[in-house]
Amino acid sequence: MIPTIELAAVAASALYGILRGVRNGFDVVGIFSVAAATAFGGGTLRDLFLDRRPLFWVERESLLWMVLGLSVIGAIVPRRLARIEPLLIWPDAIGLGLFSVAGTAVALQSGMTPLIAAVMGVITGTFGGVICDVIFNETPSLFRTTPLCATCALLGSVVYLAMAALEVPVTVSQPVATAAAATLRLVAVWRNWTLPVRSIA
Amino acid sequence: MIPTIELAAVAASALYGILRGVRNGFDVVGIFSVAAATAFGGGTLRDLFLDRRPLFWVERESLLWMVLGLSVIGAIVPRRLARIEPLLIWPDAIGLGLFSVAGTAVALQSGMTPLIAAVMGVITGTFGGVICDVIFNETPSLFRTTPLCATCALLGSVVYLAMAALEVPVTVSQPVATAAAATLRLVAVWRNWTLPVRSIA
Amino acid sequence: MIPTIELAAVAASALYGILRGVRNGFDVVGIFSVAAATAFGGGTLRDLFLDRRPLFWVERESLLWMVLGLSVIGAIVPRRLARIEPLLIWPDAIGLGLFSVAGTAVALQSGMTPLIAAVMGVITGTFGGVICDVIFNETPSLFRTTPLCATCALLGSVVYLAMAALEVPVTVSQPVATAAAATLRLVAVWRNWTLPVRSIA
Repeated sequence: MIPTIELAAVAASALYGILRGVRNGFDVVGIFSVAAATAFGGGTLRDLFLDRRPLFWVERESLLWMVLGLSVIGAIVPRRLARIEPLLIWPDAIGLGLFSVAGTAVALQSGMTPLIAAVMGVITGTFGGVICDVIFNETPSLFRTTPLCATCALLGSVVYLAMAALEVPVTVSQPVATAAAATLRLVAVWRNWTLPVRSIA
Repeated sequence: MIPTIELAAVAASALYGILRGVRNGFDVVGIFSVAAATAFGGGTLRDLFLDRRPLFWVERESLLWMVLGLSVIGAIVPRRLARIEPLLIWPDAIGLGLFSVAGTAVALQSGMTPLIAAVMGVITGTFGGVICDVIFNETPSLFRTTPLCATCALLGSVVYLAMAALEVPVTVSQPVATAAAATLRLVAVWRNWTLPVRSIA
Repeated sequence: MIPTIELAAVAASALYGILRGVRNGFDVVGIFSVAAATAFGGGTLRDLFLDRRPLFWVERESLLWMVLGLSVIGAIVPRRLARIEPLLIWPDAIGLGLFSVAGTAVALQSGMTPLIAAVMGVITGTFGGVICDVIFNETPSLFRTTPLCATCALLGSVVYLAMAALEVPVTVSQPVATAAAATLRLVAVWRNWTLPVRSIA
């Protein structure tokens, strides 16, 4: 189950990176670099933290070829991609959900406690976006209030952990947890939901 | 001895991250993220470099719970925290001293040479702050001249290494080295001490 | 052969970091920090990804002493260094070539496929510069179009991989591949070559 989730998450995240690269006028190598950093960043950090080697994209080279192919397409038809920029939120939300669930699942498999598994899920789900923001020199949106980014990843992890504790089969729990995280993210962005912040003034 | 030091260093560094998150209007998830990155960043890099797994915060989950608790408190009473902002220098200096000594001690334990142990100490002591600065999109203060940040970490490492070579027991050498680094840091910030820089103009 | 290449690459990259630190008015500790991050960043990431420990600069402590010595010299005679700033392109290009070839060679030795070896070569060749740019708060030039940075590293990797497939001895293939990458980089910067970018307007 995890391989299928990772494939979809990598495709969604790579597309997000490609769209941002295209919007910033990057060439094909720059587009591929930012796409790979966004798509592989979170899972790579998880693998390093859990000491899993080969890294997931080294073990499944097809993921790398897919990101390469998508990047070349993005560099060839950037105008078409730019037109679908309002849709950027979709791969962003789905990638977030898929990666946070995949990260949690892999950490549980490695014998981690629920708290650690949730942290690994959030890291896997959000770190690609953090790298992407650092590349474009913005305060990572993970840390800003607006899009509930880490909160959505956390929701996906917690739903998955709860269903795992109830022994729900993964064929059910993984899609449900992914959908929960992605839905919250989509709604949060559309309605501009934020967590409450107590003013310090 | 190392566990006690790490507990104090994590608390001090987390507090520093929380205060900066609060000042920037972060919500509770953002505050926790920046607190965890600041508190665990340096030690995580040290553990990755020395190939120590589980990572120190995975092995001692209580550290993670503590940072979580402090972050929730910070999000609930931010105004009180903001009022103590002039005190920010204290956790910063103490965390710097504690982490650089802990990093040096762990590296020595792993059979590293004194130079490598000093480098690991400086990395452990300063990298959390570097991540914190990158998050807030500032040139990491480690690299700027003003606060003698890396120099203080280096002092802590060197004092510890010298006392280790003289076979001073760690119950003495660790507090002394920590105090040396923290004191230099405090005085440097208060008096705005810098290392001399030769002008290139 | 790899040790010699790494020595030259570290020297070239450290010099690049030192020159940028000097230009930004850093003190000796700041200069050493940025020099070490630039010189060791790419190879460290490669070693972490391939699970090679001790890290290359831990195993060969002489590299660390060399960077330390160069940094001290840079802090003592910054004006002389600043005068040679137009020459900055040389260590940059040579370091890029040397590191990308060393990264590819090490990855092949570790049994990686050619695609993974090429990615590791590009990471090793460019990541030090990326860290350097993040320190100075610029969009990493790896991702911008102008200097063909990643493209040059890729050329070095591909030339090396092609010659390895043809069983050319490394005493020939390593200098040739390094020269190919460095030459392309030099010419690209001098002539301001870029890859074509399709406009999205």
